[in-house]
Amino acid sequence: MASNKVEDIREKVKIQGEIVRQLKSSNASKDRIGEEVAKLLELKAQIGDEAPKKFTLKTPKGTRDYNPQQMAIREGVLKTIVAAFKRHGAETIDTPVFELKDTLTGKYGEDSKLIYDLKDQGGEILSLRYDLTVPFARYLAMSKVSTIKRYHIAKVYRRDNPAMTRGRYREFYQCDFDIAGQYDSMIPDAECIKIVAEILSQLKLGDFVIKVNHRKLLDGIFAACGVPEDKFRTICSAVDKLDKTFWEDVKAEMVDEKGLDSESADAIGNYVRLNGGLDLIEQLEADQVLCAQKAAVEGLKDMKQLLNYCQLFGVLDNVSFDLSLARGLDYYTGVIYEAVLKDAPEENGTKSKSGKKEDEVGVGSIAGGGRYDNLVGMFDSKGRKVPCVGVSLGVERIFSIMEAKAKKSKEKTRTTETEVYVATAQKGLSDERMKICAELWDNDIKSEQPYKLNPKLLQQLQHCEEMAIPLAVVIGQSEIESGIVKIRNIPSRTEREVPRADMVAELRKDLESLQSTASQ
Amino acid sequence: MASNKVEDIREKVKIQGEIVRQLKSSNASKDRIGEEVAKLLELKAQIGDEAPKKFTLKTPKGTRDYNPQQMAIREGVLKTIVAAFKRHGAETIDTPVFELKDTLTGKYGEDSKLIYDLKDQGGEILSLRYDLTVPFARYLAMSKVSTIKRYHIAKVYRRDNPAMTRGRYREFYQCDFDIAGQYDSMIPDAECIKIVAEILSQLKLGDFVIKVNHRKLLDGIFAACGVPEDKFRTICSAVDKLDKTFWEDVKAEMVDEKGLDSESADAIGNYVRLNGGLDLIEQLEADQVLCAQKAAVEGLKDMKQLLNYCQLFGVLDNVSFDLSLARGLDYYTGVIYEAVLKDAPEENGTKSKSGKKEDEVGVGSIAGGGRYDNLVGMFDSKGRKVPCVGVSLGVERIFSIMEAKAKKSKEKTRTTETEVYVATAQKGLSDERMKICAELWDNDIKSEQPYKLNPKLLQQLQHCEEMAIPLAVVIGQSEIESGIVKIRNIPSRTEREVPRADMVAELRKDLESLQSTASQ
Repeated sequence: MASNKVEDIREKVKIQGEIVRQLKSSNASKDRIGEEVAKLLELKAQIGDEAPKKFTLKTPKGTRDYNPQQMAIREGVLKTIVAAFKRHGAETIDTPVFELKDTLTGKYGEDSKLIYDLKDQGGEILSLRYDLTVPFARYLAMSKVSTIKRYHIAKVYRRDNPAMTRGRYREFYQCDFDIAGQYDSMIPDAECIKIVAEILSQLKLGDFVIKVNHRKLLDGIFAACGVPEDKFRTICSAVDKLDKTFWEDVKAEMVDEKGLDSESADAIGNYVRLNGGLDLIEQLEADQVLCAQKAAVEGLKDMKQLLNYCQLFGVLDNVSFDLSLARGLDYYTGVIYEAVLKDAPEENGTKSKSGKKEDEVGVGSIAGGGRYDNLVGMFDSKGRKVPCVGVSLGVERIFSIMEAKAKKSKEKTRTTETEVYVATAQKGLSDERMKICAELWDNDIKSEQPYKLNPKLLQQLQHCEEMAIPLAVVIGQSEIESGIVKIRNIPSRTEREVPRADMVAELRKDLESLQSTASQ
Repeated sequence: MASNKVEDIREKVKIQGEIVRQLKSSNASKDRIGEEVAKLLELKAQIGDEAPKKFTLKTPKGTRDYNPQQMAIREGVLKTIVAAFKRHGAETIDTPVFELKDTLTGKYGEDSKLIYDLKDQGGEILSLRYDLTVPFARYLAMSKVSTIKRYHIAKVYRRDNPAMTRGRYREFYQCDFDIAGQYDSMIPDAECIKIVAEILSQLKLGDFVIKVNHRKLLDGIFAACGVPEDKFRTICSAVDKLDKTFWEDVKAEMVDEKGLDSESADAIGNYVRLNGGLDLIEQLEADQVLCAQKAAVEGLKDMKQLLNYCQLFGVLDNVSFDLSLARGLDYYTGVIYEAVLKDAPEENGTKSKSGKKEDEVGVGSIAGGGRYDNLVGMFDSKGRKVPCVGVSLGVERIFSIMEAKAKKSKEKTRTTETEVYVATAQKGLSDERMKICAELWDNDIKSEQPYKLNPKLLQQLQHCEEMAIPLAVVIGQSEIESGIVKIRNIPSRTEREVPRADMVAELRKDLESLQSTASQ
């Protein structure tokens, strides 16, 4: 039998088996079940005793293991990020990796099709989280928390077309920082920008710009340009493509696909190609057509305040007030952000359906976010609102950049922190070696020993050099008899003898001086 | 219509809908699909236009959010654990939260029914990971890694009956430490015990004992007692119940359920009630019936070496050689461990089906593990073996104990690390406040300010006391004019004036002295 044919039948057996199981679990009549079981047996008979499918050794599509080198880089990046969050007084929370499907329903528009559902195994209908923002809003509503400054670092899941070489996966980390609470205008909004600027500077990813804009200002511009209100969102999503597409194409989308008149489109084009700083605020404030729109005036007022605060925070040079910034997700209600690396390699190829800079980080950007004042209310039975503003860092992209950097650099990424290797110079000394190890561990000195009873000294020292372990304690029969140990500096290959009783204190001294050399 | 009845029909609609979808996706004949669609419409007609189901605001069954207090406790515990792993030179890896279903198949025996499957949405058939050991073995085989000392801290998933008050969840953390590689006997095995002892001591959970035993020794005992070889595993799983059940019940299971003769069972009973230290080794070495069994001799030799190494590592007092320790999972091939808190509250109630101390941590224990030399070979196409030994810490239970402790204690768990609060004494000074904040952040001092432009000073200082923020910088109009700031020590309510230019240096001094007081 052709193997294609067999595969076909096997697929049918699977489906038919599922039908039988579902009928059984729903207590269908015996006749009904019998009918379907007969069909199942018929199908099974057709394939007989074919060999079982060969086992494939791989991770699921769009996912990856992190090996120790990658983990070391990831840890370094996350350490910098968490330190910034804590420097700004943030707490952290965690939520389950899956949510009731109903919790996610109606939050992501057409991207809902990218949500991973769990199989119905009886009980609740569950889905893997798609981002950290919706679970955060669900948490606030459920715990009746109305003020919190929190960060959340966790994996999210999207059944997207993976582009793993560009740091895009189906399972990936998000690092979110959000400030929830009813506060005076723009103070938390400006702090989000300050945090992103601190993190990107410290990670040394190169020059970056944080684009800012305001949803209300965009609405005001659309109104001033004669866009009917029911077309605001769809015109907004056309504008959102400006950083990837020429204006002519965006205009064509507006006019040909979305039925906007050409004059309105041109008027929008004149606005959305503007960017600048406080000067642009002044220019727009002098625009009488625009300032006839209440939304525009409100948005401009917010933006002016935001840029002033950015100046006080010393990050105005990193900020660009960019009228082309629109962001895809519907739930933003105020300020929107997007951080972009200036000299990042341009991304090629067509954009995937979810690659259009949606909720937090698009392909070309490194962080994004904005204000969403209505999302928590969607979960509250009384519609009680909790205003929120936040940013999400695209850390997978940062990991990718750091990994590429590490590959280029000559220095090897250390994956362990071992400080001292305990080595023996002759056979039969493993007992003494183990006692020394125990003493070092009990004194919180990071130590290892060979897992062989009688390894060769040369091999042990080579291992230290390969693993960049800075110090070794070496013992031989004569050292034991004289009550001393040798401390070897691995890079310089120098050795000195110290009394066994002083070993821990001497190692600490060496480690301290190594540390102060390294930090100079 | 009674709502019960409606629910019944709704359930049938769901199942029937699924049947239709499956037939469609399998390209069944139009007649066949039409038949089932008709049934579906019939069912739907019965419920008519009932109101949609009300949205439930909750996390999925058996899962929980971690609030900031719980996260602070969790971070503290994990920090201690990671420090111990790193002290022993371990690297870390990460694997995806889901695996190909085939990867997990055939590894967990009858507990496979507890695995969460993902819905078939086209593409690969996936399941959530059930533990970290099988993904680790898959990783080793796939990456062709044959020596590694790694830890992995991540969530795993089991569709078990949750007992959340006892720290048992459907989504829970595991902390695994494993040593893979072909090494001299018992050196890595002993290091696992040392690590568990270090961690449990440092977490101050109270007295604990690490029970150790050996699968080969158990096999030798069974053989010496006349158990047929094909009954070894089933008798072993009866022995595994000894820490929860009286010997009489275990014997009854062996004889009545598993068909062992009564004399053999009694002989086993005499062995498995033994426990001790090096003395017990000697006693068993003198047992000629037992030592006629090769497996027993090998197991005893290993155990003797293990206990000797434990002595060298200074942890023999924490170890009990306990012949009743059996552990459920089939894949162990050598030493097995289980750490138990001595004065832990006894767990009540019936054990759930998976609560029987399986692969890593049962209800009453706090850590467990053992040697599994054949698991990696199950993934390798050539059956190439990688010997492994490891332990898994039951951190959810540790979190529960720590949370209970924190509740009892009078000291409040801090959820932020904020060191300095920047407060204003009069209205209209927010600009100056923000400049100070930026300066503190840029100097890596953890700082916050009110998110209000003009808050009352008293409220700001009360906030510091509530949040246990140790220092405040207070500015008023007169301070600004004189070029100074006030530094307030929150607990003592004392204030001093320092020149604005010295603010950062003075705060650093204060923070250092606070830190050295705290660590005394």
